[in-house]
Amino acid sequence: MGARNGSKKRIVVTGGGTGVYSVLTGLKPYDVDLTAIVTMADDGGSTGILREEFGILPPGDIRRALLALSRSDNRILAELLNYRFREGTGLRGHNFGNLMITALERITGNFTKAIHEAGKILSVKGRVVPVTLDRPKLYAELEDGSTVKGETNIDIPNHNGRLKIKRIWLEPRAKLNPAAREALLSADAIIIGPGDLYTSIMPNLVVAGFPEALKKSGAKKIYIANIMTKFGETNNFRATDFVRAIHGALGPDALDYVLVNTKRPNLGRLKKYAEEKAMFVEAGELSNGPMPIFGDFVRPKGFLRHDPEKLAKAILSLV
Amino acid sequence: MGARNGSKKRIVVTGGGTGVYSVLTGLKPYDVDLTAIVTMADDGGSTGILREEFGILPPGDIRRALLALSRSDNRILAELLNYRFREGTGLRGHNFGNLMITALERITGNFTKAIHEAGKILSVKGRVVPVTLDRPKLYAELEDGSTVKGETNIDIPNHNGRLKIKRIWLEPRAKLNPAAREALLSADAIIIGPGDLYTSIMPNLVVAGFPEALKKSGAKKIYIANIMTKFGETNNFRATDFVRAIHGALGPDALDYVLVNTKRPNLGRLKKYAEEKAMFVEAGELSNGPMPIFGDFVRPKGFLRHDPEKLAKAILSLV
Repeated sequence: MGARNGSKKRIVVTGGGTGVYSVLTGLKPYDVDLTAIVTMADDGGSTGILREEFGILPPGDIRRALLALSRSDNRILAELLNYRFREGTGLRGHNFGNLMITALERITGNFTKAIHEAGKILSVKGRVVPVTLDRPKLYAELEDGSTVKGETNIDIPNHNGRLKIKRIWLEPRAKLNPAAREALLSADAIIIGPGDLYTSIMPNLVVAGFPEALKKSGAKKIYIANIMTKFGETNNFRATDFVRAIHGALGPDALDYVLVNTKRPNLGRLKKYAEEKAMFVEAGELSNGPMPIFGDFVRPKGFLRHDPEKLAKAILSLV
Repeated sequence: MGARNGSKKRIVVTGGGTGVYSVLTGLKPYDVDLTAIVTMADDGGSTGILREEFGILPPGDIRRALLALSRSDNRILAELLNYRFREGTGLRGHNFGNLMITALERITGNFTKAIHEAGKILSVKGRVVPVTLDRPKLYAELEDGSTVKGETNIDIPNHNGRLKIKRIWLEPRAKLNPAAREALLSADAIIIGPGDLYTSIMPNLVVAGFPEALKKSGAKKIYIANIMTKFGETNNFRATDFVRAIHGALGPDALDYVLVNTKRPNLGRLKKYAEEKAMFVEAGELSNGPMPIFGDFVRPKGFLRHDPEKLAKAILSLV
């Protein structure tokens, strides 16, 4: 997957969804060695159908990470890889990039090779590594003792969203991909998040061998707390609550730093989120855990997401 | 579609299927300006479904021509573009390259732009031009007066294959694509064939405006006769019969040269074809028509198809 350059800082980014995309996009212009370790819990939409019918690992988060790392200036190629068919009895709902990874898996006979070949087509900088090569399902236990099966059902949420998630796990047990282990061990920095805590971040951390590899690694471990809470996953969470949950999975003192956005968006931007019962994440009491890095990390416009450039600068100041 | 280079010989290759692929592959290494004018009659398989459900022009022959002209040394990319899904309720039978052209048509809003963008992804040398931007169906009238509708039904053949095809036509009427007209008018050589006479070659020649543009062009017009007859299309045809059919569509004296393979394959290679009622094409009496160029144009092994290198050398000796 491309030779590592000994002189460059090795940064491993872990997670899924748009959060990983933001961090990778921000770091891409810098002279660093990037590895994205991507969650394999996704089971909805086009990805879910391909998982079921082809028995492959879920391609959606892989595709997003590859696009984030693409050096191609072909704008249409990026649009193509994100294109979702809206017509065709058999094609409607399928994402073109997911189909490409699926076809490459069949041609090369191997998901890892498929990612490598997709990376060549997209002129990717760095590597994209599935956190596991096993094919488990994600489960969540809620505070009332009930169980929710499947990443999509937890994510939507397809359950009473006022109930807290007690824990999540993978079934059958999933082992850490050796390539992911190697990347964690040799990293100078490991970035966790931002992203949905129980559907994008924790599905990596509960893979067997992940906490051990992270602990063993000499890397600086940096967690990027979310800007907004998510209904059904992190109701009323402050940055401290995010950290507590992650330390619950990784062990106490696992994190060295936590990046906390303190720039409060104006009411107009917050209003849309209130409809989804999502609230601004307050810092909380962060004196006893990882060193907090406070700052304005939010995009100036649009969705309340992290700004890739601001994130990259903060990360690089720590590495 | 790439700027034309005034100093290079401009060669236009017309047809469909594997014949065009052979000619383009053979000519690609040479310093010539290549344009493929591709038939739009295909209506079977993956292409047929995409035509019907997306209302687009048929992508199959476009894809083959693009691959023939690709300068990319990425072998997997070529495999990917030819990959056909064998699983998935909605995907089975679909060709990945066809899906790519379809998605690009939706993204760019235009089939010509889609071909251009696919050409960029494949680093194509030259241009691929649909013979028409209209969406007609191919019809054939047999010697008993009956009509067969659809390229696939003529091709299989889905009718009594012992009956001769009297004529083919397109319905509704299809007009020559202005880009194809321009290429024909400015060409130094126009190559017709090889390929199935009534399902790959003639569907170009019966497009309104094609015979006129060909006649007006100062190019040398070179027809490459088939090596083998095809049951249901060209039973017992000699090279003279192919030429007569083409002159029937284009007008007498339309062709300047006809390349005729005179290398008779050994019995072992002919045997498989006998099962499909396909026979070796004899030259026949070629004294009154285009100048015949006799030679060994057949591939040394495998299917009885034209050898790209031998074809290219013969063509370039005439231009």
